[in-house]
Amino acid sequence: MTQGRSEFIAQARERLGSKSVITEPEEIAPWVTDWRGRVHGASLAIVAPSSTQDVAQVVMLAAEHRVPLVPQGGNTGMSGGATPPADGSAVLLSMRRMNRIRSISAEDQFAVAEAGVILSALHDSAHEVGMRFPLSLGAKGSCTIGGLTSTNAGGTQVLKFGTMRALVAGVEAVLPDGSVHNGLTWLKKDNRGYSLDQLLIGAEGTLGIVTAVALRLVPAVAGRGVAWAGLDSPIKALELLRFLEARTDRVEGFELIPQDSLELVIKHVPGAREPLTGKQSWHVLIEATTPDAAFDVSAELEHLLSEALERELIADAVLASSEAQADAFWKLRETISEAERAEGQTVAHDISVAVSDMPGFILDAAQQVEQAFPGVAASGFGHLGDGNIHFHVRARSHAAPDWYETEGAEITRFVDDLVTGAGGSISAEHGIGQLKRSEFARLAEPGRVHALRAIKRALDPLGIMNPGKLVP
Amino acid sequence: MTQGRSEFIAQARERLGSKSVITEPEEIAPWVTDWRGRVHGASLAIVAPSSTQDVAQVVMLAAEHRVPLVPQGGNTGMSGGATPPADGSAVLLSMRRMNRIRSISAEDQFAVAEAGVILSALHDSAHEVGMRFPLSLGAKGSCTIGGLTSTNAGGTQVLKFGTMRALVAGVEAVLPDGSVHNGLTWLKKDNRGYSLDQLLIGAEGTLGIVTAVALRLVPAVAGRGVAWAGLDSPIKALELLRFLEARTDRVEGFELIPQDSLELVIKHVPGAREPLTGKQSWHVLIEATTPDAAFDVSAELEHLLSEALERELIADAVLASSEAQADAFWKLRETISEAERAEGQTVAHDISVAVSDMPGFILDAAQQVEQAFPGVAASGFGHLGDGNIHFHVRARSHAAPDWYETEGAEITRFVDDLVTGAGGSISAEHGIGQLKRSEFARLAEPGRVHALRAIKRALDPLGIMNPGKLVP
Repeated sequence: MTQGRSEFIAQARERLGSKSVITEPEEIAPWVTDWRGRVHGASLAIVAPSSTQDVAQVVMLAAEHRVPLVPQGGNTGMSGGATPPADGSAVLLSMRRMNRIRSISAEDQFAVAEAGVILSALHDSAHEVGMRFPLSLGAKGSCTIGGLTSTNAGGTQVLKFGTMRALVAGVEAVLPDGSVHNGLTWLKKDNRGYSLDQLLIGAEGTLGIVTAVALRLVPAVAGRGVAWAGLDSPIKALELLRFLEARTDRVEGFELIPQDSLELVIKHVPGAREPLTGKQSWHVLIEATTPDAAFDVSAELEHLLSEALERELIADAVLASSEAQADAFWKLRETISEAERAEGQTVAHDISVAVSDMPGFILDAAQQVEQAFPGVAASGFGHLGDGNIHFHVRARSHAAPDWYETEGAEITRFVDDLVTGAGGSISAEHGIGQLKRSEFARLAEPGRVHALRAIKRALDPLGIMNPGKLVP
Repeated sequence: MTQGRSEFIAQARERLGSKSVITEPEEIAPWVTDWRGRVHGASLAIVAPSSTQDVAQVVMLAAEHRVPLVPQGGNTGMSGGATPPADGSAVLLSMRRMNRIRSISAEDQFAVAEAGVILSALHDSAHEVGMRFPLSLGAKGSCTIGGLTSTNAGGTQVLKFGTMRALVAGVEAVLPDGSVHNGLTWLKKDNRGYSLDQLLIGAEGTLGIVTAVALRLVPAVAGRGVAWAGLDSPIKALELLRFLEARTDRVEGFELIPQDSLELVIKHVPGAREPLTGKQSWHVLIEATTPDAAFDVSAELEHLLSEALERELIADAVLASSEAQADAFWKLRETISEAERAEGQTVAHDISVAVSDMPGFILDAAQQVEQAFPGVAASGFGHLGDGNIHFHVRARSHAAPDWYETEGAEITRFVDDLVTGAGGSISAEHGIGQLKRSEFARLAEPGRVHALRAIKRALDPLGIMNPGKLVP
């Protein structure tokens, strides 16, 4: 096996050039641990091709020498999907050098970006042509288009524009046999057999290496309105969302935040301030946008929130009066996880249920968890309009250092059982990777497990594509 | 083999009841030939289950006795995908008795319909709750939700709402091992491995039997504007579309019609009349709709067309002044194929290229075909805004009765080569079925063929799911 890896590395260097093959341990080190420091792997080399043809060469060499490849973009994943196994049997395939935007067109409303293009770079390029790529998330300065596609990423704008699956018009990928699948032609209708594009989206690199993606663009934002509202319960929050959706199609962000999460942010994040004067049990952060410079979307949002106040859907609300204040509101939402880490140990669950079931689920699950594990604090925050919240459970103060691995793991199984019982998903947007694989195996329907394994074996019979990930 | 089929039929009758198993040849006869009379098959029986559990029973029996199943909905397919093989080796699996709408909700904007629900029945049910299922096509009175899903059907409203793939939120299906895949839970975000839902959409029943589908609904139409415009060329038609799209998001139908197609309709369809007074080379039929009863969408369309006239994008236009006139305009579009058949033999090609390439492709391909096959008449009509036209080639008058099978087949290969050379699809919305399988095999990339075959073998190792269809 070691011999196979050495030969693979030597031949990759020969064919791709020495610049494309990194073997210095100190250059490899930052990339073999996931960014949260939860999963530690090892790799003899990082191969970093700069073209689709180079990727095809690497895949064929990997097949020849039976060396598994672990594709990696910005290494910002939440489930360890881009971290190699600890035994060093696999080689990291870094896609970061494939970072060209091959084309971008305002008229056709689409762009073709290589896998290594960083999300914020795509945002900038779209902006330059008067357009917008509407998916965004916290890691936008590091995460890549290939990783976003391979994990079917979500984020804060899914409510209006959908996840990556809704925004990807086509995928170019190197399949495990070294052939190139070209799905980049911009065909709105194409019914030639099974959609390999759709199969590769969310496959976490286990069926092939995504090398480039055709993406839908939307008109640039000309104005936005951002508001913070306080209310009694998640049920009221959903009623507010339904009320807003019936009146306008301009709401694209709708985030739920419980009071205790806000308090942690105020406590731990420098400069954070309560947006409302009185105390509220729950909060929502609302963003509405318009591509029409002549339309005052902030005024529309203010008007709708006044009506919501009259209808007693909300108890209080404030509109951001400047871009700086709007950013400050968003920062309160985006620093919740950071504040939790400062407070102590937390187990996080990225879950979804049907949108209309979510308010009840949040309240019920928190109560059940706190009853079953006395002293912990459970709460859900996030994308209520997508039926997707981040359900976090914080350790009691002075919890043992191994709380995360012990009671934390028990809590995860408890929460995953509740979610599965409610017909929901134990991975709404973060994927399975390696961290959720055992829970996925425990809870998935046997027919589904069988089908996933069969597809994996069929397309990757040598098992060289990100082994040990996703497939239970 | 015959013994296996007899035992399969006997046991299916025993388990599902005799009402669910039809063996009278005269009752089978109407369903073993496709509706255009192009493909003739044979089957000893039609099995017609009434529940998902019954379908699972049938699939397990089929696996046990190695009897291939050919799923069928309304038998309105264009590629012979629902017609059994002529050797009688397979059994028809009619989904028409599974025709319940399990749930429908205006608040959640979705419906769960069983595979056998007829499209117009779903339209009616959605209308009753103030909503709309926005996909429509000529066969709406016969085609079924299962068939539409399994062929990723398109139609005339794709411009705004997409094909079935964009409208299907989840699929329930019986997999080839008899297990039930339940994708109906209404999760907006779910990243638990490969999307079986997406794999089943457009799989033409070769990977499993779709038994029910969760579908997105949109608000009901409160008003529509329908216009007919005459113009110089397909290039102008695309310019008009871009012009309209920049001004409004209410256009949902945009159909291109050449003068010669219109003339055939006037000649052969009783009551058909030219919408415009002067002759035009090309025509477009435009439909705009609004869910807002207070908005005059017809006035908006009229205003925009006046401006298009000033900009010389169009030469003339008329707005339908009544629902009856609007329907008459649509009838001109929908009877083109019928008029062609009355005129003589025609070979039809359902093709797509990039939207911006389509005007040039139509003109160029017609010229090339007419040069290569002197005496024939080629023209393209249909969904210009989707980059999808129906490219039809009519035989010269007094062509031999076998023209369709001889020169017609040559012309198809010629057209398919042109489309493939232009990076397009030889099946934009009609699927592969059995009629396009050899052309698909001839023109598909080898890596793609390999992947499709591997997936098929992996999920259906016994080959009991609609064999001889789709997979090249």
